[in-house]
Amino acid sequence: MTTYRLDIAYDGTRFRGWARQEGLRTVQGELEPALERLFGLPVPLTVAGRTDAGVHATGQVASFDAEKAPPEDLRRALNALTAPDVSVTSAAPAPEGFDARRWARSRRYRYRLQLDQVASPFERHYAVHFPYPLDRDRLDRCAELLPGTHDFTAFTPTDTEHVRFEREIIGARWRGPDPGASGAEEILSFEVEADAFMRNMVRVLVGTMLEVGAGRRDPDSFAELLTGRPRPEAGETAPAHGLFLIGVKYR
Amino acid sequence: MTTYRLDIAYDGTRFRGWARQEGLRTVQGELEPALERLFGLPVPLTVAGRTDAGVHATGQVASFDAEKAPPEDLRRALNALTAPDVSVTSAAPAPEGFDARRWARSRRYRYRLQLDQVASPFERHYAVHFPYPLDRDRLDRCAELLPGTHDFTAFTPTDTEHVRFEREIIGARWRGPDPGASGAEEILSFEVEADAFMRNMVRVLVGTMLEVGAGRRDPDSFAELLTGRPRPEAGETAPAHGLFLIGVKYR
Repeated sequence: MTTYRLDIAYDGTRFRGWARQEGLRTVQGELEPALERLFGLPVPLTVAGRTDAGVHATGQVASFDAEKAPPEDLRRALNALTAPDVSVTSAAPAPEGFDARRWARSRRYRYRLQLDQVASPFERHYAVHFPYPLDRDRLDRCAELLPGTHDFTAFTPTDTEHVRFEREIIGARWRGPDPGASGAEEILSFEVEADAFMRNMVRVLVGTMLEVGAGRRDPDSFAELLTGRPRPEAGETAPAHGLFLIGVKYR
Repeated sequence: MTTYRLDIAYDGTRFRGWARQEGLRTVQGELEPALERLFGLPVPLTVAGRTDAGVHATGQVASFDAEKAPPEDLRRALNALTAPDVSVTSAAPAPEGFDARRWARSRRYRYRLQLDQVASPFERHYAVHFPYPLDRDRLDRCAELLPGTHDFTAFTPTDTEHVRFEREIIGARWRGPDPGASGAEEILSFEVEADAFMRNMVRVLVGTMLEVGAGRRDPDSFAELLTGRPRPEAGETAPAHGLFLIGVKYR
């Protein structure tokens, strides 16, 4: 039995998220049949970050165990058997017992906003168009409040499968504006690293910070939200298509 | 009668090119009905660069004449009436008699190649995957041969509507590799400016230079091709989706 690690990038636009769902196009549902074809029997994947519909990844990690030897170039074989909106960037044997989810020490996400007055055709699936005034100082003040362990109950749906609502934010910052896909766009990004994230957590954090940045919410109330307040007190869930899982760190 | 200038960006992936064609989705066919709705009568567009199916633009320019006054914010009104894969970045009155095609002094194109071993999901529509060895010096030598006036018969289809095959290249160079859409890709670009381009001209130039860069064609033969040789002597037409019209210069 050998454990393998896959590093994966995908354009989430045409996927209904990572997790396999009967009758829907998902990233797991794209990769597992390819693995089954190569290894001759079902190969369930364990993933570091279960991304939602429309969310992208440049640094997703998954693992699986297989008894049979892999093809000579596993990465190439997988890319040949899967659609062009998902790419396996690396496929290699991992340390014994490696588990992409349990061994992950942290996940890192980026959320992208396009600030220009006119929405760019080249960013329409990869950044949320936000052509409204934003106070960058207020955004930065929110980001500075995030590092540390907090209760993020306010930042995940009330109807939840999570049982523990504390998460440790390792780092959080707004960066940019940087040029976008065609070089002409102004892209403001929020990057955040945590031990783990709950469902929608980055998107509600961003939605709430944008309300602070737009002057519609007090920065002090943002601090208050990190103490286990109920979901309705936080802001809107920002759209999925601005979000990228950009990396996973392991011990 | 007022003449207007539109600056336009589009993702060419889902368009069958610029020029209106019955029953096909084209950029002109997307914009003209919106203009007709705003001005109350048909408004034919004149364009600087008639791009082919799959070709993108960040700096396309079109012009039209209209008697009726435009809506207060013409740009916003046009963007509201057109699909998200085309954006009007500017819409403004132009000097009397302005004609986006005839007044253009030069057009500038960029062709993008993704060099990494694995094709990026985020570049699949915006760069051509070229994971093969390339001799950059040989590419640069080709680019250096381009400035000046040459006969580009070899670089446009034999079955042609063009009657004059000389074009003046104002500048040409390979640049990069630069990071791509997700920051992880290696993107090599070819940029070229000329008074005007014939159909497929940039794509055949790139296809031929890649043969030189890959060692399958002699750089001296590339010089020879600029003297009016027949089409079959040049290389393959590189795919449309790597090509961007990035700007038009006017007097």
